[in-house]
Amino acid sequence: MLVVQKFGGTSVGTVDRIREVARRCLATQAEGHDVVVIVSAMSGETNRLLALAKQVNDDPPLEYERELDVIASTGEQVTVGLVALAIQKAGGQAQSFLGSQVRITTDNAFTRARIKSIDGERIHEALRQKKIAVVAGFQGIDEAGNITTLGRGGSDTSAVAIAAALKADACEIYTDVDGVYTTDPNVVPNARKIARISYEEMLELASLGAKVLQIRSVEFGMKYGVKIHVRSSFNTNEGTWVVPEEKQMEDVLVAGVTAARDEAKVTLIGVPDKPGTAARIFKPLSEANIVVDMIIQNVSSEGRTDLTFTVPRGDLKRTVELVRTSLPEMAEQGIKTDDQIAKVSVVGVGMRSHAGVALRMFEILAKEGINIQMISTSEIKISVVVESKYAELAVRVLHDGFALHLPA
Amino acid sequence: MLVVQKFGGTSVGTVDRIREVARRCLATQAEGHDVVVIVSAMSGETNRLLALAKQVNDDPPLEYERELDVIASTGEQVTVGLVALAIQKAGGQAQSFLGSQVRITTDNAFTRARIKSIDGERIHEALRQKKIAVVAGFQGIDEAGNITTLGRGGSDTSAVAIAAALKADACEIYTDVDGVYTTDPNVVPNARKIARISYEEMLELASLGAKVLQIRSVEFGMKYGVKIHVRSSFNTNEGTWVVPEEKQMEDVLVAGVTAARDEAKVTLIGVPDKPGTAARIFKPLSEANIVVDMIIQNVSSEGRTDLTFTVPRGDLKRTVELVRTSLPEMAEQGIKTDDQIAKVSVVGVGMRSHAGVALRMFEILAKEGINIQMISTSEIKISVVVESKYAELAVRVLHDGFALHLPA
Repeated sequence: MLVVQKFGGTSVGTVDRIREVARRCLATQAEGHDVVVIVSAMSGETNRLLALAKQVNDDPPLEYERELDVIASTGEQVTVGLVALAIQKAGGQAQSFLGSQVRITTDNAFTRARIKSIDGERIHEALRQKKIAVVAGFQGIDEAGNITTLGRGGSDTSAVAIAAALKADACEIYTDVDGVYTTDPNVVPNARKIARISYEEMLELASLGAKVLQIRSVEFGMKYGVKIHVRSSFNTNEGTWVVPEEKQMEDVLVAGVTAARDEAKVTLIGVPDKPGTAARIFKPLSEANIVVDMIIQNVSSEGRTDLTFTVPRGDLKRTVELVRTSLPEMAEQGIKTDDQIAKVSVVGVGMRSHAGVALRMFEILAKEGINIQMISTSEIKISVVVESKYAELAVRVLHDGFALHLPA
Repeated sequence: MLVVQKFGGTSVGTVDRIREVARRCLATQAEGHDVVVIVSAMSGETNRLLALAKQVNDDPPLEYERELDVIASTGEQVTVGLVALAIQKAGGQAQSFLGSQVRITTDNAFTRARIKSIDGERIHEALRQKKIAVVAGFQGIDEAGNITTLGRGGSDTSAVAIAAALKADACEIYTDVDGVYTTDPNVVPNARKIARISYEEMLELASLGAKVLQIRSVEFGMKYGVKIHVRSSFNTNEGTWVVPEEKQMEDVLVAGVTAARDEAKVTLIGVPDKPGTAARIFKPLSEANIVVDMIIQNVSSEGRTDLTFTVPRGDLKRTVELVRTSLPEMAEQGIKTDDQIAKVSVVGVGMRSHAGVALRMFEILAKEGINIQMISTSEIKISVVVESKYAELAVRVLHDGFALHLPA
């Protein structure tokens, strides 16, 4: 088998942890597998580097983000060298590779580039020589040869993309948790580790705040059918496999429950209900890269309507400014905001074939007296906005109500 | 004019110093010049990185020195990004370049690679766009695309090689001293800054311990006729120009005096005086990369001779071991060592056409009662080995005796 193993910043955060990574890779190789390791920067290193850059230039224009990538990409470069040295020291053979050396070609959107292609040839050559290939995560190179980085958490994406390019049998993502849970175990102690989950469910969970896997890595996995194994770097337990949807997954109504607390709500009261108003409001937000999540529009009365939407909490102030500019006729008091909200969601591919999940969710929340402010649904997800103080209670009662603590 | 400016680790050691470098480059550009900056790693950074590598693997085999270069080269990579950001912040335009990006092609002798060629096209392109090109020193890339480094002080060589490739009008090497002095000003307070010195003299001074310029950078400068200007990063004074030999340089008998304390002496007593003995002794040393500097062989008597030579002090133990192995017939007491020696030298192209410098040197030393243990001479240099406790005295009396404190 060809196994890609990805170790994050904490897993390579000290010399001892790096030795541990080396042993782990060698153990996998000793089982008869070809091993490719993807590593992040040592924990804290990327922050240190970017803080240094910020001291020199606190607000570089867009084209100088190129230089931020030159600086930040050194974190992973150091780690690949160290891991290769640790593998040699532990009795194995290894070779490090930078993004430029395996031609992880990206677009040129510095600090948040997207992978376009990977040339696996040099890695295959190293594997043929029985070496462990140690590849720098997070980084790539654009077509002009500039260094790019993939944004925070980008090493997950590097790992899955490399696994796809190499047609690896598995992509193991090592983290400090045991796998993906039905909900946050800190909130619900009897949360259960999920053995297998579909890409679609994982995407919904990831975008809702389960921080185990970067969203783009899951998208990549789904697109190329890479089997992702999320597991702990502290033990050898099976973790969670993120895989194509399987028949029996449909038997489970709800795979997981999550809460996201990083949004805020904006309500516009008495908006003129005529064509083009929505565009006038949302186009400037889009241009400012503000992601509008949920949108609700009430039934119109007397040519006016109320419009409510959510944005990332950090963008709230800017959102209000932009709305004032685009709707100058809005009264000051016509714009209401609320940042004390949480979005609670249940996710599961079983919803597709089973009606009534939404109804049950509303009943469970109602029974606890939790008021629902907004609702949005997708094929495999139902989200509700509630007062943020109810977030944890809502997660607990939903987890219980859908009996997620019981094995699927 | 096209000016290459090189700043070492101390000159970019803090954020403030980096801002200072940016201002200096911009001031040069404002005078109407095209500016290419070569920078080292921030002071202490290369040591920190190599110490980290050593913690992971204290004795990597030769082929894993590749990984040391992957790690060590990040130091310069961070600095080029920071300097480019600092230039932008100060109102200019800049672009960073890595060794791989300007194709500083080297051989594949990791940790001590030699530059073979440089492709200046990307730098010229940046200059045409009125940008300051900020190039990482110390690093290159071999023909297979592996990162290489040039060895300690390699950024000087990078700077001079880039100046040669770009046909720059001057290569300014910024240091923490004002230029090259007739001798160490810490030893001889009235040492004088040399305005112009030939490559040949500089080579002799550099190899004898004047730490201002890396030897290879001077060799490169000589080979390609690059005018090197060694100057202070703390002021705008003219420093020392290292240039092709000029007619008037011959009027100066001695350009400088130096002392090197990092050698040790080995004396082999009663070595069989027959063909092949010298080869038996020195071939193993050469193979072990031990540089033998001075060699003296006494006149033979009764088929036996005494042989004395010097090696770097750090290699003394290994040298003795190798000699014992290659000359097993040598008695234990036949091998004598002395690491309390210093090599004191006078250097000057004027010696070529003026006899009597050696004689005068010996007289000056004799007058002070300083015993000469070994002598070696080249066309423009005379070196003597003395007891190390006399080193500073020897330098002082020679500096005085040749009147080096007076303007040439």
